[in-house]
Amino acid sequence: MTTTDPEALADRVQDGDLRIHELEEHTDADTAAEARRLFVKRETGADLSTTGDYAFPAEEADSAVENMIGAAQIPMGVVGPVDVSGSAADGEHYLPMATTEGALLASVNRGLSVIRSADGADARVTKNGMTRAPVFQVEGVAEAAETVEWVDDNVDALREAAESTTSHGELLAVDTYVVGDSVYLRFAYDTKDAMGMNMVTIATREASELVEAETPASLVALSGNLCSDKKPAAINAVEGRGRSVTADVLIPGELVEERLHTTADAIAEANTRKNLTGSAKAGSLGFNAHAANVIAAAFLATGQDEAQVVEGANAITTMEAREREDGTTDLYAAVSLASLEVGTVGGGTKLPTQAEALEVLGLRGGGDPAGSNADALAEIIAVGALAGELSLLAALSSRHLASAHEDLGR
Amino acid sequence: MTTTDPEALADRVQDGDLRIHELEEHTDADTAAEARRLFVKRETGADLSTTGDYAFPAEEADSAVENMIGAAQIPMGVVGPVDVSGSAADGEHYLPMATTEGALLASVNRGLSVIRSADGADARVTKNGMTRAPVFQVEGVAEAAETVEWVDDNVDALREAAESTTSHGELLAVDTYVVGDSVYLRFAYDTKDAMGMNMVTIATREASELVEAETPASLVALSGNLCSDKKPAAINAVEGRGRSVTADVLIPGELVEERLHTTADAIAEANTRKNLTGSAKAGSLGFNAHAANVIAAAFLATGQDEAQVVEGANAITTMEAREREDGTTDLYAAVSLASLEVGTVGGGTKLPTQAEALEVLGLRGGGDPAGSNADALAEIIAVGALAGELSLLAALSSRHLASAHEDLGR
Amino acid sequence: MTTTDPEALADRVQDGDLRIHELEEHTDADTAAEARRLFVKRETGADLSTTGDYAFPAEEADSAVENMIGAAQIPMGVVGPVDVSGSAADGEHYLPMATTEGALLASVNRGLSVIRSADGADARVTKNGMTRAPVFQVEGVAEAAETVEWVDDNVDALREAAESTTSHGELLAVDTYVVGDSVYLRFAYDTKDAMGMNMVTIATREASELVEAETPASLVALSGNLCSDKKPAAINAVEGRGRSVTADVLIPGELVEERLHTTADAIAEANTRKNLTGSAKAGSLGFNAHAANVIAAAFLATGQDEAQVVEGANAITTMEAREREDGTTDLYAAVSLASLEVGTVGGGTKLPTQAEALEVLGLRGGGDPAGSNADALAEIIAVGALAGELSLLAALSSRHLASAHEDLGR
Amino acid sequence: MTTTDPEALADRVQDGDLRIHELEEHTDADTAAEARRLFVKRETGADLSTTGDYAFPAEEADSAVENMIGAAQIPMGVVGPVDVSGSAADGEHYLPMATTEGALLASVNRGLSVIRSADGADARVTKNGMTRAPVFQVEGVAEAAETVEWVDDNVDALREAAESTTSHGELLAVDTYVVGDSVYLRFAYDTKDAMGMNMVTIATREASELVEAETPASLVALSGNLCSDKKPAAINAVEGRGRSVTADVLIPGELVEERLHTTADAIAEANTRKNLTGSAKAGSLGFNAHAANVIAAAFLATGQDEAQVVEGANAITTMEAREREDGTTDLYAAVSLASLEVGTVGGGTKLPTQAEALEVLGLRGGGDPAGSNADALAEIIAVGALAGELSLLAALSSRHLASAHEDLGR
Repeated sequence: MTTTDPEALADRVQDGDLRIHELEEHTDADTAAEARRLFVKRETGADLSTTGDYAFPAEEADSAVENMIGAAQIPMGVVGPVDVSGSAADGEHYLPMATTEGALLASVNRGLSVIRSADGADARVTKNGMTRAPVFQVEGVAEAAETVEWVDDNVDALREAAESTTSHGELLAVDTYVVGDSVYLRFAYDTKDAMGMNMVTIATREASELVEAETPASLVALSGNLCSDKKPAAINAVEGRGRSVTADVLIPGELVEERLHTTADAIAEANTRKNLTGSAKAGSLGFNAHAANVIAAAFLATGQDEAQVVEGANAITTMEAREREDGTTDLYAAVSLASLEVGTVGGGTKLPTQAEALEVLGLRGGGDPAGSNADALAEIIAVGALAGELSLLAALSSRHLASAHEDLGR
Repeated sequence: MTTTDPEALADRVQDGDLRIHELEEHTDADTAAEARRLFVKRETGADLSTTGDYAFPAEEADSAVENMIGAAQIPMGVVGPVDVSGSAADGEHYLPMATTEGALLASVNRGLSVIRSADGADARVTKNGMTRAPVFQVEGVAEAAETVEWVDDNVDALREAAESTTSHGELLAVDTYVVGDSVYLRFAYDTKDAMGMNMVTIATREASELVEAETPASLVALSGNLCSDKKPAAINAVEGRGRSVTADVLIPGELVEERLHTTADAIAEANTRKNLTGSAKAGSLGFNAHAANVIAAAFLATGQDEAQVVEGANAITTMEAREREDGTTDLYAAVSLASLEVGTVGGGTKLPTQAEALEVLGLRGGGDPAGSNADALAEIIAVGALAGELSLLAALSSRHLASAHEDLGR
Repeated sequence: MTTTDPEALADRVQDGDLRIHELEEHTDADTAAEARRLFVKRETGADLSTTGDYAFPAEEADSAVENMIGAAQIPMGVVGPVDVSGSAADGEHYLPMATTEGALLASVNRGLSVIRSADGADARVTKNGMTRAPVFQVEGVAEAAETVEWVDDNVDALREAAESTTSHGELLAVDTYVVGDSVYLRFAYDTKDAMGMNMVTIATREASELVEAETPASLVALSGNLCSDKKPAAINAVEGRGRSVTADVLIPGELVEERLHTTADAIAEANTRKNLTGSAKAGSLGFNAHAANVIAAAFLATGQDEAQVVEGANAITTMEAREREDGTTDLYAAVSLASLEVGTVGGGTKLPTQAEALEVLGLRGGGDPAGSNADALAEIIAVGALAGELSLLAALSSRHLASAHEDLGR
Repeated sequence: MTTTDPEALADRVQDGDLRIHELEEHTDADTAAEARRLFVKRETGADLSTTGDYAFPAEEADSAVENMIGAAQIPMGVVGPVDVSGSAADGEHYLPMATTEGALLASVNRGLSVIRSADGADARVTKNGMTRAPVFQVEGVAEAAETVEWVDDNVDALREAAESTTSHGELLAVDTYVVGDSVYLRFAYDTKDAMGMNMVTIATREASELVEAETPASLVALSGNLCSDKKPAAINAVEGRGRSVTADVLIPGELVEERLHTTADAIAEANTRKNLTGSAKAGSLGFNAHAANVIAAAFLATGQDEAQVVEGANAITTMEAREREDGTTDLYAAVSLASLEVGTVGGGTKLPTQAEALEVLGLRGGGDPAGSNADALAEIIAVGALAGELSLLAALSSRHLASAHEDLGR
């Protein structure tokens, strides 16, 4: 029996007659959410009126969340234009960012303004492959070696199996790793405009069945953590996952002085001490100042997986003073993101505010050619991260220069 | 001149008469956001009506975002109750989570249900310290050694300086690191119920001035990346940052079988192959299945810093079969989060939906004693992460067991 | 003028007439070493008579050391027989080890004895590739992408160039990595029975010239540290360098009890707490107890590069209880060395005691087929490491069991 | 019955009447070694005459090796003088190095010569602590928190227990780490002139018994891999183990040009691309060019633990161009070794050639004050490593400069 009375439904949950996740079986999605808010309010005293004041039909979120009570609202702003010359992104784009980190957008915007004055940034996706790495169990290393050999000899058959499950994905490679009686196979796919985790999981399951049928190996888990999804892992920082993308810009010395109030040498030194040497000493996989801030905010705005900010933080910031023939010293600045996992179709990108944010970028849905929208998104986010790094390092080094001058004055 | 006509303001931005970030100087926050949406629509064609349909006065977000155009709406659900016996958290709590990852809340909820049947989880904050690590420049190692010695001898003076800037924070320790002519000082603070990044930055600036005054060292940057904030760094995984918190549960063998459809031995084996050995081979700092998913969703719902999911992923999952005297084998399961950075006051926790989510938990604002609310939040999130790990590993190992049985049948 | 009077030569060095490294230009190698000892004795008072009492003509060491004064003598013993069934090694081998670590050989020998009783260990080389990774400079990421594309399209030409410099080496793959305006190319070679660093350096230099000629890239250094040689680097632990080799053994429960005085479950637990979880928490790339001890001692004895013990320590030890149908629990034990760099020709293998040690193994010089001697050496060292792990973990867990029993008795 | 007939003893081993490690029970150490050589020759055909031609009584090696057959002879040379101004080392020292790596000593010597011309290097031990980290088992996190609290409150009692076992060692600190139901305690000691592994193991065993007596924790292993000994672990790279030591030098621009044929800027750039950025991309804990080579060779010569080269490789090389007021650019160069584990008493330092090498350095035996000899050894090795880095990076950058000039000429 369906009802639209949220109070009555909340009563039934409170009476133990219904469980909290069963509400959608008895009413529409919005009423279910309202009933849940009522129930939670009775249990905890919390007023959830803002949470309940969301701006889309609840059923549009049914593939994104269970036990829905409403929506978290994260302030969203816009920075730009991002001036980029990439392999996929071109020209000027406004980049929406959702965050609770005050001053972040202002900082990125300052950096973008300098980048525009420097005739824009270059960006390139230099590697692309979404990975899934099942772990198999064998009797011992003799069987492990046998399994690895079979896999190396049968990549075509594995490709056929994997690709039978998807109309878009393409298997690029299968890398093999042996640890005792465990065999890990890292499958890498081109997933075009999708971030692709679901696609590669399904495709890898199919390929894994072939491995099980043809070798002594028995599947333990479709992810054996060599993927690595949502863990800070060297394998992603080194080999990449999703897009490996670099953005860079050459900023004339005059601009560095007038707009950033510092010098290329001072910025390069701050970058070396902080982002390179400091991160080295910290045992870090992230050699940057705050790339994760930009990535997290862009991910939230555009419907990316918020937990994949973890891999997004595998970034190296490069700052270098370059002397021109006339003696002026320009600043070369780059950010290289090893494992940026983005998509413009599927998952959170379909949600209303997220889809609007992708519209702002002109990148909603599949690209032409396939994959070009996700490439462009990666390139634009990379330029955003570059702007954030530039802005913060410039601020540090200009303060340091000023303080050094004061010291001399004493 | 203040105006409330968004069209006119958008015109002025488009004419180059106003810059996009100057709108708040000429109108109220909501109108400024509307003008920005109009401008962006004209430039990009994107309709931003859902983004503009946010549920709070824009000026409440002015310390969270610049160039506001509205809000990203992330579907929020609730899981629980979380049954926890902690040092700060106690009893049953509903945990709000905001995510676009379908099936996540259902998975966590299954785990929480088993935990409740097992009489709840224990949780403890075993370390607590928010860090900031400035980098100083010296002439060379002779001065570096001199600086380090001064710091070691003057921790009380540094404490006095640091604590002069804050009514809540307490300096716990200063660790010293030397690399060539760079000296890094890692200041750790008890920041009570605040996540504390701003607090420790201000306090450390004050302490750094004392270092500069009394030693040959000259400050280059208030963060020298040994903090490490929002980078995947071993120093956090090893030494902790924010709260180090562990949650664990002992699940009777009967429950493992009936509710999780597997055995303690099978879960322990899957955990070892995937989360321990697999992560080892991946060069990972995260030895877990998907803790970041739970952390990210809880962070978003409760107003934590979304980019600090990076450090949140430094987690080790432990699963172990324990034989009882009667021969039954129980499952011991734990998740140890090394660097969970949470607060219940300040930052994003003040935003409307986020404050409501903290109300649901009963943890909005400062705790009594100070710090107990943030401790409790850490403990509850840890139990949530534990539930997620349990659920996923149980699913993996029950499938593996089933498949092994099939194989035997062939 | 050549002289054989070491006193006179030492006088000339002391007078500043000759420099310490010029002695070989004026006399034979042994006299030069003697003159140097005299000179050092005069300068420092140190008697070097044992150092000078080496057992081979000094000129045989001229490609190994400069400024020779004699030899360090490291006590050498022998363990075994090592009972191994490998892809290259087969049957029983005595393994020489040189060390100053008391009890090491005794410990390894105990482990080997248990392995023999368990019908020997299996071993397999599962990956093989010596790497060299030059770093190139480009203008920016646009040129970097162009360079990477050229490399991907011209692997055959690079192979031809590289292999033109060597009669043995074969180029297996070239992996590309971009960071800002740096491009790293990781060349991997099959170097057969040579450890191969010199071979791959020369081959990569030739290939790098082709890269410089055909792309905008300019070579900065033949090693850009993504090789990585003699640094503890995840890239080696993940992807391997030299041989990736695993040795394993299944030890019947009866043997575990009688000979190791413990149980498979207890050993597995100790391994998990120490080698897996402990190493995880330490931010380690080595998940083992003391594999480096065995590797270092075998390296010294057989003329391997002593500094490559660094990469040798990238090892994961696996210990697992396996229940038989009759209820007995056996122990599965494995050691997986990711990056063991060994050779049986060239370098230190030609020195007299080192060549003798390789004779003991039956592996001096090139194998048939080429590469099989180095494969066999890798497999035997892996079994030695396995024996060392077994012995130490058994000792730990038997003590723990005993102490647990005592506790129960109290 | 004791015999001095090696042939007869070898017969008995071959007949299975004696085991290979029982020979010392029946004869003197030298005859036992000879009998073993005979036995091995019969089994393998290997002639071991050079191995048997060692230069010291075999019984002097009985605490260093078992199953002795002789000695590995590693060519030893000398470099220097090393001109160093340290906290312990002062003035000029010749440094013996034993290696099979041709050109290594020549390279270090070139670097040392430049350092002398630059008025010598500075060096400082900036941290000192040999660690041992037992792992304890508890019921769960509640007991873990209880244990940690007890430890934090009872460091004095733990110190008393630990120091009761040693007349030299001093307990400096106990750090606590919790992972699920495992508690790791990292004990750090000042072990003075001893490398100290044995000392700290014994002291920690005593302290661990107190922990077991007073808390619910039960000892599983005296090393839980957070020490970390002989594994490449971030905890050592970050926090140090043994000595953390930095050596640096400021080389006038004129010297850089005349003697190294390059410029400070060019060296700094090569260092950044290779040692910083390259190592960053490799997921490395070693940010240097070949420090391990120097450390390994000095360790072998002076009787250090050859497997601890692993931790020795945790080094960061810093190169920086510094502009003088007159416009000349000098080179600041430093090497910072995080975890150099050295001693001048005990272990391999007592062996004949090793003791002689320490005599050459003037550092044999205990220092005055205690610890100063080991400090000095650390500082001298650090300068040696610095010389090796300088020499190699200068060679790289001078070649790069030359090649760049050629390119311009085209």
